[in-house]
Amino acid sequence: MSIKKLFKFTAPAAALTLMPAIAQASNLKSDDFVGISFWLISMALVASTAFFFLETQRVEAKWKTSLVVSGLVTLVAAVHYFYMRDVWVATGDTPTVYRYIDWLITVPLLMIEFYLILRAITNVSGGIFWRLTIGTLVMLIGGYLGEAGYMNVTLGFVIGMVGWAYILYEIFAGEAGKVAAEKASPAVASAYSTMRWIVTIGWAIYPLGYFFGYMAGGADMETLNIIYNLADVLNKIAFGVIIWNVAVSQSEAK
Amino acid sequence: MSIKKLFKFTAPAAALTLMPAIAQASNLKSDDFVGISFWLISMALVASTAFFFLETQRVEAKWKTSLVVSGLVTLVAAVHYFYMRDVWVATGDTPTVYRYIDWLITVPLLMIEFYLILRAITNVSGGIFWRLTIGTLVMLIGGYLGEAGYMNVTLGFVIGMVGWAYILYEIFAGEAGKVAAEKASPAVASAYSTMRWIVTIGWAIYPLGYFFGYMAGGADMETLNIIYNLADVLNKIAFGVIIWNVAVSQSEAK
Amino acid sequence: MSIKKLFKFTAPAAALTLMPAIAQASNLKSDDFVGISFWLISMALVASTAFFFLETQRVEAKWKTSLVVSGLVTLVAAVHYFYMRDVWVATGDTPTVYRYIDWLITVPLLMIEFYLILRAITNVSGGIFWRLTIGTLVMLIGGYLGEAGYMNVTLGFVIGMVGWAYILYEIFAGEAGKVAAEKASPAVASAYSTMRWIVTIGWAIYPLGYFFGYMAGGADMETLNIIYNLADVLNKIAFGVIIWNVAVSQSEAK
Amino acid sequence: MSIKKLFKFTAPAAALTLMPAIAQASNLKSDDFVGISFWLISMALVASTAFFFLETQRVEAKWKTSLVVSGLVTLVAAVHYFYMRDVWVATGDTPTVYRYIDWLITVPLLMIEFYLILRAITNVSGGIFWRLTIGTLVMLIGGYLGEAGYMNVTLGFVIGMVGWAYILYEIFAGEAGKVAAEKASPAVASAYSTMRWIVTIGWAIYPLGYFFGYMAGGADMETLNIIYNLADVLNKIAFGVIIWNVAVSQSEAK
Amino acid sequence: MSIKKLFKFTAPAAALTLMPAIAQASNLKSDDFVGISFWLISMALVASTAFFFLETQRVEAKWKTSLVVSGLVTLVAAVHYFYMRDVWVATGDTPTVYRYIDWLITVPLLMIEFYLILRAITNVSGGIFWRLTIGTLVMLIGGYLGEAGYMNVTLGFVIGMVGWAYILYEIFAGEAGKVAAEKASPAVASAYSTMRWIVTIGWAIYPLGYFFGYMAGGADMETLNIIYNLADVLNKIAFGVIIWNVAVSQSEAK
Repeated sequence: MSIKKLFKFTAPAAALTLMPAIAQASNLKSDDFVGISFWLISMALVASTAFFFLETQRVEAKWKTSLVVSGLVTLVAAVHYFYMRDVWVATGDTPTVYRYIDWLITVPLLMIEFYLILRAITNVSGGIFWRLTIGTLVMLIGGYLGEAGYMNVTLGFVIGMVGWAYILYEIFAGEAGKVAAEKASPAVASAYSTMRWIVTIGWAIYPLGYFFGYMAGGADMETLNIIYNLADVLNKIAFGVIIWNVAVSQSEAK
Repeated sequence: MSIKKLFKFTAPAAALTLMPAIAQASNLKSDDFVGISFWLISMALVASTAFFFLETQRVEAKWKTSLVVSGLVTLVAAVHYFYMRDVWVATGDTPTVYRYIDWLITVPLLMIEFYLILRAITNVSGGIFWRLTIGTLVMLIGGYLGEAGYMNVTLGFVIGMVGWAYILYEIFAGEAGKVAAEKASPAVASAYSTMRWIVTIGWAIYPLGYFFGYMAGGADMETLNIIYNLADVLNKIAFGVIIWNVAVSQSEAK
Repeated sequence: MSIKKLFKFTAPAAALTLMPAIAQASNLKSDDFVGISFWLISMALVASTAFFFLETQRVEAKWKTSLVVSGLVTLVAAVHYFYMRDVWVATGDTPTVYRYIDWLITVPLLMIEFYLILRAITNVSGGIFWRLTIGTLVMLIGGYLGEAGYMNVTLGFVIGMVGWAYILYEIFAGEAGKVAAEKASPAVASAYSTMRWIVTIGWAIYPLGYFFGYMAGGADMETLNIIYNLADVLNKIAFGVIIWNVAVSQSEAK
Repeated sequence: MSIKKLFKFTAPAAALTLMPAIAQASNLKSDDFVGISFWLISMALVASTAFFFLETQRVEAKWKTSLVVSGLVTLVAAVHYFYMRDVWVATGDTPTVYRYIDWLITVPLLMIEFYLILRAITNVSGGIFWRLTIGTLVMLIGGYLGEAGYMNVTLGFVIGMVGWAYILYEIFAGEAGKVAAEKASPAVASAYSTMRWIVTIGWAIYPLGYFFGYMAGGADMETLNIIYNLADVLNKIAFGVIIWNVAVSQSEAK
Repeated sequence: MSIKKLFKFTAPAAALTLMPAIAQASNLKSDDFVGISFWLISMALVASTAFFFLETQRVEAKWKTSLVVSGLVTLVAAVHYFYMRDVWVATGDTPTVYRYIDWLITVPLLMIEFYLILRAITNVSGGIFWRLTIGTLVMLIGGYLGEAGYMNVTLGFVIGMVGWAYILYEIFAGEAGKVAAEKASPAVASAYSTMRWIVTIGWAIYPLGYFFGYMAGGADMETLNIIYNLADVLNKIAFGVIIWNVAVSQSEAK
């Protein structure tokens, strides 16, 4: 039986299956600020990814890798935000599991940026790379086990904080911090310093979310999601733009 | 039970789920000029994005960023227009919320173009960048709060107008305007001037839409959508083409 | 309730929603020559787009834009052909509205190719660009209003023909024609001349289709679609290949 | 009515529409060797396309076109194989019509490769291009009309064979063959010769399939599909790799 | 009947077809570590593919091919992991057939990496290429026939092990091993050596999975999948990163 004939009889029924994306799209209310913030950050991440990848054309070979990694961070985040956005608009939930999957990939990549920026200006030991990676994993896995109930909530929090403190030590006072202080040109030193403060201040939102969400009686999920979404604009997009800025200025200086 | 067997019995039923996109596609009437204008602008934005991104190959390093940003504007707009187009064809509504999400990303990017064009010709202070960004956010957030009912309609309108006026001041008579007047070659000055008039005249459609839609008794949504769609051809595509033109001519001059 | 459990009970029902694309794919009959011609031209346009975009790597800066625009033409056409193909296979209709949306974007781009080819060899006035664009819009809008019943069919036809005649005048005997005659190298002149004859002879299919479809008693839609599809191979793909050929030969000559 | 509320009641029903792709994916049996061969060739074609397109970066301008065309062949084939694969897994059929659509685009492109390789080493007449294209169309259209029942099966076969014989004549003993014998460096001559034997031996599978499928009592469709799939690894992927190899070695020689 | 009208009556029903992707996404439990590992590896493979392809910009022509092939491995794996991930989340099964299809394409590509790295530093015989390819196919086809029940389980295992042993012989003590020992610079020799140990130790997980799954009473599928997923991080991503590292350092050395 040809579909052509069937269509005549079944067109009304076929209409029932109106593309779900449409149903969903028409469902974003103009007062759903959480949903709007998910939409905004999703598209901003897509645009950032295109930006970082295309701008690799503009910089010297050794800075290209820094831009590519900035673009990988926003690419991975964009994909997860699209999932989170759709789940939010359809159900009003935002499963924390997607944020952790995102973090397990993007946070080590952000740490690698410190290593790459130093490698672009001088010879650095692989030890910086490994210490930052390990600190990151301690921070994330501690946090996840605490949140998912596999470990005492406070213990998970403490382990996560230790990982974060170790990262901060490395980039401020450890080998990475020393290399930056001794070898970096003013422009690179300034970028490195801003990136460092983003990791200090911008990342503080995550343990605060954990603390208020799991240890201090539960947070308002709507507010928490908006704050997380804004934090990612700083911690992922602005972080990448700082690297882009120094890569362009250093490439033009030659 | 294998799907292969099932298929034999269920093929007629399966046909019921004819791809919704088809149902929808066959539904665009040849007299639905609003729908046609959504289709046209959607595809034109896709083509523009490909154009700006590919043409980065053709210009000098410092002009590449201007073209990339032109492409980001049309990319972000294209995605939102596809959502708006599908919602329109299926339901006859165009939720204003998508236009605002689009504007919150693309309008600051358009402002950055003024900064980038000046940065490509001389050293400019970051102050230009920040003042244009702040003016843009005041303009958009004022407008949104007024439209969405979180603020008195007239107050929202006034705040939005103040933001716009501030932008116009900056690019005509402020630091940006002065840098352009003093440092730009004739070709760059001409492009800068045209871009400035697009922001003055082309953007006037948005407060007019707001005024007639919310303050003067309600507008005809069909007409308003066609006007918004045509305005975006000017404000996004033509704006980018002007930048492309100056980027190519300046790159060839070397 | 977990989807995993649900799946056990509902797998047979789930199978009912077998991907519509499959149902549709298996529905293309080996004797549906119209459907086959839609499939062929759709894929040929996709391949052409990839070809033109990738070949920009191979030519000089000033010829890159010509190839990019050739690729935009085939990109926009490809998207609309996929819609038309799916509508055809599912319903046996081909809404003319998609052909007009496609033409409203691709025909001005084809006209721009004349301008770009002249601009690549010498300084040309923007007047050529604007006159060709206006001629194109007169041709298309006249035709559309006639076909869609907003204007007397004969009047629409006459207006459309006037637009086309004006284009032909410009590229044969007007400023564009003169620039080509005076400034073009033999290779460019030959390409320009072939493009001109495509616009004369290849485009004649569209008014003929209009004439037989609306003024001479109605045409056989099957035949008309095959002819339109073949015409697009000439008017879009072959037209682009001629430009590619001259771009490559001129770039190698340097 | 908000989708959020609806969801609570309809989640079980929504689960019925589990993504068909999943249902289909879980349906590929580990003993369905035909299905496995479709999966393998589909993915191999995708990978080949990425390979040829990316490797254009590595070769001289004049060899880029050869790699782009190799990538177009695998791109077009990949798309059709995805359709054929999904139809096979869902229904156990493989409509011959998709193979012919694929061939009508890819076989002329393969013929163009002979022309491009000669054009990369010397000046060649366009006659080679046109004769190979015409021979290809005679071969394919003859075959299709015979298979689809529009012509006597044997007559279709004979016409197809004449087309193929003409191609073989051109590339072995005709102008193309002579140019290759006289002008090619040893590396190019060796590649040209291998490509020629692929067209002779590798393509023999298609008339054999036709013969056993339509003239000698009908073939086992399962076996025939596996053989066609393996043949395409040789005729499309390996053919392209030979061209890649000579393009790289010639580019490095400079 | 227009879809617009239908929509008013059918919106609640349309909501039933809520995008399956959403239903599926909201179904990933925060304690489904297998599902999480599938998500992680899928996204990590996507990011790796983007990384390797984009980094080709940064290295010398002869190293580009090595990076492209690293990206093909992660591209092909990414596609198959997305299928496996979705099947896992929806049904809790992971059909081994997808792992084998993936291996049949990616494992030969990994072997080709040894050939390409040697070819980048000196002239090597094609024999290395062919011996590694044949060893790989023996290993994979033996394993598959044993697992799928077409051959005695132990015999399949032995044949697979012979193929693997032959590969190890070639890269440690055969022609490939000798070329590496004699011609490679310290950096290349170190990368080659690490790649060799990955093939020795990292690949051991596959025969161990086979042994415990089919010969020693059946393994726990959950554990096995997590181990396979982690192994692929080492065998596909880390393997590629080692090649990237040597390609960058060798390109910069010039």
